[in-house]
Amino acid sequence: MHLAGGRLRDFARGCDVLGGGGGGQARYALPLAVHAVELNGPVQVVPATELPANGLVMPCTFLGAPAIGAERIGTCREAATIRGHVERHFGQPVVAMLCNEIGGFHGAASVALAAHAGLPMLDADGMGRAFPGMSRVAMHLAGVTPDPVVLADEHDRVVAVHAGDGWAERMARSVVVGFGDRGVSSEYVMTVDQVADAVITGSVSKALRIGELIGAAASVPDAARAIVAEFDGVLIAEGRVTAALPEPGRHTPATIEGTGADEGRTLRLEVGHEYLAVIEDGQVLATVPDIITVFDTYTGEALGAEELRYGQRVVAFALPCPDVWRTPAGLDLVGPAAFGLDLPYRPVVAS
Amino acid sequence: MHLAGGRLRDFARGCDVLGGGGGGQARYALPLAVHAVELNGPVQVVPATELPANGLVMPCTFLGAPAIGAERIGTCREAATIRGHVERHFGQPVVAMLCNEIGGFHGAASVALAAHAGLPMLDADGMGRAFPGMSRVAMHLAGVTPDPVVLADEHDRVVAVHAGDGWAERMARSVVVGFGDRGVSSEYVMTVDQVADAVITGSVSKALRIGELIGAAASVPDAARAIVAEFDGVLIAEGRVTAALPEPGRHTPATIEGTGADEGRTLRLEVGHEYLAVIEDGQVLATVPDIITVFDTYTGEALGAEELRYGQRVVAFALPCPDVWRTPAGLDLVGPAAFGLDLPYRPVVAS
Repeated sequence: MHLAGGRLRDFARGCDVLGGGGGGQARYALPLAVHAVELNGPVQVVPATELPANGLVMPCTFLGAPAIGAERIGTCREAATIRGHVERHFGQPVVAMLCNEIGGFHGAASVALAAHAGLPMLDADGMGRAFPGMSRVAMHLAGVTPDPVVLADEHDRVVAVHAGDGWAERMARSVVVGFGDRGVSSEYVMTVDQVADAVITGSVSKALRIGELIGAAASVPDAARAIVAEFDGVLIAEGRVTAALPEPGRHTPATIEGTGADEGRTLRLEVGHEYLAVIEDGQVLATVPDIITVFDTYTGEALGAEELRYGQRVVAFALPCPDVWRTPAGLDLVGPAAFGLDLPYRPVVAS
Repeated sequence: MHLAGGRLRDFARGCDVLGGGGGGQARYALPLAVHAVELNGPVQVVPATELPANGLVMPCTFLGAPAIGAERIGTCREAATIRGHVERHFGQPVVAMLCNEIGGFHGAASVALAAHAGLPMLDADGMGRAFPGMSRVAMHLAGVTPDPVVLADEHDRVVAVHAGDGWAERMARSVVVGFGDRGVSSEYVMTVDQVADAVITGSVSKALRIGELIGAAASVPDAARAIVAEFDGVLIAEGRVTAALPEPGRHTPATIEGTGADEGRTLRLEVGHEYLAVIEDGQVLATVPDIITVFDTYTGEALGAEELRYGQRVVAFALPCPDVWRTPAGLDLVGPAAFGLDLPYRPVVAS
């Protein structure tokens, strides 16, 4: 399988769905991916079984303030610079890139980073969705060390951080501030034989498939129905946003009032960096780490948490998160309490 | 030659003299050096001719906010952590430490860093005095690259910066902010055969000798006279500070009114991070990069630029800077204009 042409758009749409409102918008990374593929050719997507067991898999992602990144988009050649440093450090070739965060911006951007680094993408990612925080990845739960965190800017400046789990992100963010609040980062480098238990397998093909379902659907509600049917999710409601005060990073509840068949229902959406929970009449319908997605009924775009506005017509649905997040250790890291919610975790179960 | 016991105090006194008011006070680093030598034994001071030509010389210095460093003094084992990283990076053993900045705090601290790293000190330094800024070193003028800048904190966290000359310091400071505003840094690592033209030779023994002269003098003015006689300097004046508003990092002129044989003279001292110039009746008596030192007549301590206070009895004198700073390239980097002074450079010449 490879990513190029129209598949890039499908893939980006799927990334936005898997973002669960978080991770920024894949549609803004799409031009980077299209341009990178034009320059470097299609990006192959491969399963771990097709790679040499002792080759290195290199996660890679943009880091920095989103507002800076919107203007200072980088060249994505940072990934090639990082690849060189990683190979020198480990004395082994990198054989594939791993998308850290399939959800939202970083999912689509990873195609651009892989293309410029001259690497295939592993059909996997670190989260199966989007989360804030460097350590909210399957690699961390599997005990992989983030060291060295290798960071680069678009002028080939490279910084390598050896700080251990607790300080890796703190130090990486300090470094990126020095870069001018935008850089590319790689951490949790593994060998291929480590990835089986340390990544979310199949994320890239899943995002692509979701994008294809959206493209094939006759309407936005139909697209939502097709996605939940194929990926064991649940449709929550169609409705209209009647209250929303999005402030990125703060809990700012929004209200969705049902329309059509859902007339009379009132849903409360807890919103942080992503959609954290949906509550109706005191009942939890879905919470993190499951993936809550809100489609704009008119545009078909999966709305980012900071994009919710009064009056939007929407379709809300939820998809189950990867199994690793439903373990006790997973819920400690990314369950409702990890995001400040005093709510129980009620796994999304397809009806 | 080795540094231990009473020689450490002499050395620290000499470092304060060579600081020219800048670089912080060596007396505050003296306990670090004493403790490190107690734990690790005396530090050998060696000329480059006694070291293997292809061995590495590792400059090493504390970095961060002085106010933080006063409370969070580090362990100096950071130097051992850095040594390990440098040796792995270059694949060669480090055979000596180089003091970056002999003047003030960092001169005395370098003994502690060398002791903990298990290294002798090269009888040399990077400045021959104190300067603010990572690139104001002889290594920079000689074209040595600062990369990699290797930084560590007291918890063995290590960060390596490959950013080139222009960004090395910016990135290093960002990293140190991440450490909590205190760390140890090494940059401009060289092989022994590179040092001849790239360091200030003899700095350590010079500081030690100055300290010995102070210890042997019958009075503070006598100490000043002995130092200028041996090191081709000039005595400027004895007097009293009659105006001083020290604000570190800002140009805040101070006034010294002559006493005794200098009665009736009025000197204006331009003060920045260090003493930048002495002016009398419109004549420049001394400027950076020459070393202007102000002794407290009662304590015999070389006063830091931020320690000047109204009413202090002082003896001011100047020593010539190393020749490398008197070249056109040297004056570009550290001449009066580099510190914002619209003054000509008038080299100190022994009368």
